[in-house]
Amino acid sequence: MIEIHQLEKISPMDKRPVEIVERKGIGHPDTICDEIGEKISLYLTKYYYENFGVPLHFNIDKCVLVGGRSQPQFGGGIVLEPILLHFVGRATLHVYGELEKEVPIGVLVRSAAFDWFSENFRYLDPLRHVSIIYSIRPGSTDLRKLFEAVKDSPAPLANDTSIGVGFAPLSETERVCLGAEQLLNSREFKRRYPAVGEDIKVMAVRRNDKIRLTVAMAAVDRELSSLDDYLSLKESVKSELYEHLSKLTDRELYVEINTADNPQKGIYYLTVTGTSAEAGDDGQIGRGNRWNGLITPLRYMSIEAHSGKNPVSHVGKIYQYAAQKAAENIQKELCLDEVYVVLVSTIGKPITEPQMVYVEYIGEEGGSNVKSEITSIVEEVLKSLPNFWRRYIEGKL
Amino acid sequence: MIEIHQLEKISPMDKRPVEIVERKGIGHPDTICDEIGEKISLYLTKYYYENFGVPLHFNIDKCVLVGGRSQPQFGGGIVLEPILLHFVGRATLHVYGELEKEVPIGVLVRSAAFDWFSENFRYLDPLRHVSIIYSIRPGSTDLRKLFEAVKDSPAPLANDTSIGVGFAPLSETERVCLGAEQLLNSREFKRRYPAVGEDIKVMAVRRNDKIRLTVAMAAVDRELSSLDDYLSLKESVKSELYEHLSKLTDRELYVEINTADNPQKGIYYLTVTGTSAEAGDDGQIGRGNRWNGLITPLRYMSIEAHSGKNPVSHVGKIYQYAAQKAAENIQKELCLDEVYVVLVSTIGKPITEPQMVYVEYIGEEGGSNVKSEITSIVEEVLKSLPNFWRRYIEGKL
Amino acid sequence: MIEIHQLEKISPMDKRPVEIVERKGIGHPDTICDEIGEKISLYLTKYYYENFGVPLHFNIDKCVLVGGRSQPQFGGGIVLEPILLHFVGRATLHVYGELEKEVPIGVLVRSAAFDWFSENFRYLDPLRHVSIIYSIRPGSTDLRKLFEAVKDSPAPLANDTSIGVGFAPLSETERVCLGAEQLLNSREFKRRYPAVGEDIKVMAVRRNDKIRLTVAMAAVDRELSSLDDYLSLKESVKSELYEHLSKLTDRELYVEINTADNPQKGIYYLTVTGTSAEAGDDGQIGRGNRWNGLITPLRYMSIEAHSGKNPVSHVGKIYQYAAQKAAENIQKELCLDEVYVVLVSTIGKPITEPQMVYVEYIGEEGGSNVKSEITSIVEEVLKSLPNFWRRYIEGKL
Amino acid sequence: MIEIHQLEKISPMDKRPVEIVERKGIGHPDTICDEIGEKISLYLTKYYYENFGVPLHFNIDKCVLVGGRSQPQFGGGIVLEPILLHFVGRATLHVYGELEKEVPIGVLVRSAAFDWFSENFRYLDPLRHVSIIYSIRPGSTDLRKLFEAVKDSPAPLANDTSIGVGFAPLSETERVCLGAEQLLNSREFKRRYPAVGEDIKVMAVRRNDKIRLTVAMAAVDRELSSLDDYLSLKESVKSELYEHLSKLTDRELYVEINTADNPQKGIYYLTVTGTSAEAGDDGQIGRGNRWNGLITPLRYMSIEAHSGKNPVSHVGKIYQYAAQKAAENIQKELCLDEVYVVLVSTIGKPITEPQMVYVEYIGEEGGSNVKSEITSIVEEVLKSLPNFWRRYIEGKL
Repeated sequence: MIEIHQLEKISPMDKRPVEIVERKGIGHPDTICDEIGEKISLYLTKYYYENFGVPLHFNIDKCVLVGGRSQPQFGGGIVLEPILLHFVGRATLHVYGELEKEVPIGVLVRSAAFDWFSENFRYLDPLRHVSIIYSIRPGSTDLRKLFEAVKDSPAPLANDTSIGVGFAPLSETERVCLGAEQLLNSREFKRRYPAVGEDIKVMAVRRNDKIRLTVAMAAVDRELSSLDDYLSLKESVKSELYEHLSKLTDRELYVEINTADNPQKGIYYLTVTGTSAEAGDDGQIGRGNRWNGLITPLRYMSIEAHSGKNPVSHVGKIYQYAAQKAAENIQKELCLDEVYVVLVSTIGKPITEPQMVYVEYIGEEGGSNVKSEITSIVEEVLKSLPNFWRRYIEGKL
Repeated sequence: MIEIHQLEKISPMDKRPVEIVERKGIGHPDTICDEIGEKISLYLTKYYYENFGVPLHFNIDKCVLVGGRSQPQFGGGIVLEPILLHFVGRATLHVYGELEKEVPIGVLVRSAAFDWFSENFRYLDPLRHVSIIYSIRPGSTDLRKLFEAVKDSPAPLANDTSIGVGFAPLSETERVCLGAEQLLNSREFKRRYPAVGEDIKVMAVRRNDKIRLTVAMAAVDRELSSLDDYLSLKESVKSELYEHLSKLTDRELYVEINTADNPQKGIYYLTVTGTSAEAGDDGQIGRGNRWNGLITPLRYMSIEAHSGKNPVSHVGKIYQYAAQKAAENIQKELCLDEVYVVLVSTIGKPITEPQMVYVEYIGEEGGSNVKSEITSIVEEVLKSLPNFWRRYIEGKL
Repeated sequence: MIEIHQLEKISPMDKRPVEIVERKGIGHPDTICDEIGEKISLYLTKYYYENFGVPLHFNIDKCVLVGGRSQPQFGGGIVLEPILLHFVGRATLHVYGELEKEVPIGVLVRSAAFDWFSENFRYLDPLRHVSIIYSIRPGSTDLRKLFEAVKDSPAPLANDTSIGVGFAPLSETERVCLGAEQLLNSREFKRRYPAVGEDIKVMAVRRNDKIRLTVAMAAVDRELSSLDDYLSLKESVKSELYEHLSKLTDRELYVEINTADNPQKGIYYLTVTGTSAEAGDDGQIGRGNRWNGLITPLRYMSIEAHSGKNPVSHVGKIYQYAAQKAAENIQKELCLDEVYVVLVSTIGKPITEPQMVYVEYIGEEGGSNVKSEITSIVEEVLKSLPNFWRRYIEGKL
Repeated sequence: MIEIHQLEKISPMDKRPVEIVERKGIGHPDTICDEIGEKISLYLTKYYYENFGVPLHFNIDKCVLVGGRSQPQFGGGIVLEPILLHFVGRATLHVYGELEKEVPIGVLVRSAAFDWFSENFRYLDPLRHVSIIYSIRPGSTDLRKLFEAVKDSPAPLANDTSIGVGFAPLSETERVCLGAEQLLNSREFKRRYPAVGEDIKVMAVRRNDKIRLTVAMAAVDRELSSLDDYLSLKESVKSELYEHLSKLTDRELYVEINTADNPQKGIYYLTVTGTSAEAGDDGQIGRGNRWNGLITPLRYMSIEAHSGKNPVSHVGKIYQYAAQKAAENIQKELCLDEVYVVLVSTIGKPITEPQMVYVEYIGEEGGSNVKSEITSIVEEVLKSLPNFWRRYIEGKL
């Protein structure tokens, strides 16, 4: 089942000639979809657990965000038409058994969305600026049969044949890419630069020792009184990025912000609410960051969307966690330079029994027991998966 | 700009210990979204060209498919609720200039969808089994200004910062994965086995010299009179696959079809229309096959969705083509073992001038002129990009 | 229960000084909603009957039509965006009992709509020009319990407190109003004047002996090569109306067609498909003609929408029929000048037992047995109501 | 133009043998649609006036409400799925001229809906319990041309051929019907009986001197701890109604509340939020109360929906006001027993110039100058119509 492979003569990412990394920040339309999908997943899992003792089946991993329309202007513009979010999936809505209960799916979806917007945006009023619809097919379950099934089975059965991919550690360029967005979206930074919107996208391209960051950063119109304000905001942010990121790397750094700007033609990246979703940028679940928060086309990568999938049996979600966790533990415990873990499930088989575990590592590690150590680390992670959902709802991941 | 890198001591994919490859066939919900997105893109580009002389701006690369409801049964069941497709994007709908004309966006979207279903399904009646809605924001354009802009510019300007990835050649396992689906969805095969539905998903996992194919294959209920028919269909298809695929590989082949079946519990993969989309399987654009028709997590991979993007300036589409084309040409002309090409655009810069071209190759190729040959092949491909859309609408890609 | 009242010294409608009557033709947006609502009701009732032996509960009497967008022009224009129909209601979708069966609600709704369009329009292609969505909440029923309930009850129980209104006979002005639309939408007339669209609205205002007809008539662009064609079409139609309607009345007749036209400003009533619904005119169920096909503000009138209601227990539909039928029978059998019948149901009581039957009549009828004759005619109609649905699906109403 | 007719020997409504009157209270699904439609109309008219100096064209008089799903229970239940409101119409969204401005249509629609719910419900949380979508086609206007057109025209031009109907005074039964709902929905009553929901429907049927009121009254679950509470609430409300309504009439009064209740079978009218819209009762604009707040099938009645129509040129709204106002003024000033006024517009003609004014009155009024007095009252009302919209936005109607 497990296949372990040492890559000899191959350099870890930091030493390769080229890197390409992307990060879509919290306010990007794709990230909005992913994050609310996850919040719905969390609320629903909790609701099932608190009301029925077990999380029931669901899968709401499809969503499309239709961008709104707005008219930003320095000093403060207006939103013309709301963002529309259309969530799609299925969920157990009716439960037979001792408790004859219906699941308030619509209210959970709306609450998740509105709570998320309230927690993550400062200038977007979910009540006025967002519409929510959903197409969630109902399922039903018999609680007693479910409890029997749970007792009989050592682990939930995988509900799909899918692939999980993880690696460790992050390269310097990846940390720089992540760090840039995290700085700009940190509370402290927002306090000092309230005009910096939540919609931040960072592309980092490294050639040997030069890292070029292309940052797309929405500005908030009411916090800027003029084009001069906007231009000086860009300068300040650039300086802050240089200062902050130089702590993360010694390589040469080039930062560019809003490269499509053309002030003479009146083109600059101004928004009312802090996100391009207000003005026509659309989004979907699963089109942005992977499980580790980054898009890394020169790494092994899963195109599975983990957002909105259930944390009990949906390997499209659980195996992202497991692969990442295993990679991190292996790399750390065996002090390897770089580790990849890839997991493949089989639909209908226990989630603890993947059809394939593939581990690749780079690094000088003595002894023949590398493979057995790796094997035991992977097995430990797999063994923990039936409890994944508990830690998920406790926020311990 | 161009970075070329020879990977020494690394084996091409065929010689690595493990491969994982996936192919979502024509009838898979994600593929349905991708394909209709492309058909809309094609119809719209053609319409613009035929009516205005140039393709105008659009981007309809978001779509969610809400699975329907059905009640299949041997001998023929019924569809209960239609599949719903919700397309999202923007398009130029109004054109000023010599011709004051509106663009029939809604009719183009509906025609594309219904034509596609008619061409690709045998048992799905788009009129009764599919609902189409769309949220496409209107744009307008001044034709004269547009023509001037086109004259002044050597190439369209990239409308995003995105990444294109291509590689060549396909490995044996990849050809096997692709070949399995293509066999089952070929006209000739459908003629002999009409009960084989269009929704085919193939996962190929290779460990050294063993390839395991996991095939999910929808069966069509009206073409099967009983469970026995279904079971014998599976056996026949398995034999056919072994026979057909053994022409593509000498490795050991294991084929499994519909592994989640459990006939005792009444679980088998039966459909009325040939696709799981009829019964609750949802889909989205960009969640399935990449440009080359495969999902290859152990290869460099772009998560960009090319479907529905415009073929003039949207590098998310054009650079997939360019990277793939360059990789193929380089590999072929220089007789290399394996070639990867990665392109990164800069928003607002000509599509012929990527900020980064990264080429990796494996293979013994003599002489110092490898790099210059690669460079000139890449440049040739880039130079052709302003004409990409013409060949796109002529069907020459 | 029954209240009968002779109106002395009051003239029947034909002799009153003023009349106002309106008729929205088959292609009017409100009529489209009403008619398709009825077709859905018919298809669903039939489906229930054929599959379960009894019609099950449903109520789909809400619908909104969102007008499309088009660009008509002489010689033939194009539809830009389709008409959207959104049907709303509830229906029994799941039936327990000997037959475990699901109801194909979505396919029935789509079939009803598309069949209706195909039967009633010549230039509207439902596949390309119409989108259908629906929000129909599912209900379920236990067949055995239902059959027991049906056996125990002499008549279905009214599912609402509502009002049915009928009157007879039609006045001359009403016959003229109805006749004008029927002429223009007759097969024979369409054959001779294919350019006359299906969307015809007629307002008839009578003052003493002068009847003024205001006709709104959509013209079909591909059947007219120029404005001159359009203007001469209007003239021809006007002549035909005078000729045809003069057979129905001896009063002075004034006909005006498309009074809002202003050819100098380019304003005329041209369409691609024959209905204003293609270009922004919206509609709803229940906002147009009453049960008798007319809107008669100077008559007693129910605002209940009968369309889309079930024919078994929904008095909002059945009592329109019953009141009209009773009025017609009373008027005819007793040779009265004018008869009104008003019925009021009580929710939860048998449909054969209204809380109020109110009959008003005008006319000289000898003898004291008028009231008993009226009573017995009304009772006969009421007694027939439990079979209303059978005749409904047989098309015998 | 004006036609005045005295009805001799006909009794005013109070003296006729039968009356049927209906009132759908504030929380009824149809009333919700009507009221929010009006609030949107108000917000939009105000917005146009405040931003452009004149109200621009719009018409949002179609809406469908899709009932939600809930699980009420004594002590407090939950809402499962939100109510969905789908508004349909058109509005001027883009204005050329000195001010290049876009109209925030989506935000106005959402604000109107949420403000209305907040003002009119105590237990319904619009954020969690209501979804809003809209299909509003955009129009555009040139401000300068508009101002010129306004200067040139003595009055706005009617944008439809429609009918307005009014009468005065209300009969005793009508006042009783109205009074019953107003009592139950008054602040003071809600304070004393918080368990009485907002969804109240009253049907009043009078036969000679007996008035029977059938009241459908939603109860609020969290304010009732048991079925006993519910039953005693019904008793208390009944007593209060008798007491209150006996001040309005001396006739015999019979009040029935929630006649479909069947406590043995667990059937009673319990809600979480106070409206049946939470649990599957659907609604539409224009299907409930007429302009005067009542449905009166035995009176002349317009089926026009005034809600959501613009107050400048849409005679479907303005003529309801005008007819009612004229009827009231005539009845009061000439001390007549009963007056009906019916107005018919012609599309494209000034709203001050109806094609027909029809006045009917009952009452002994001396002198030959009745007709001239009526004529001058009507003319005064018509003359005031170009200012209707100003008083509309000032809340002076």
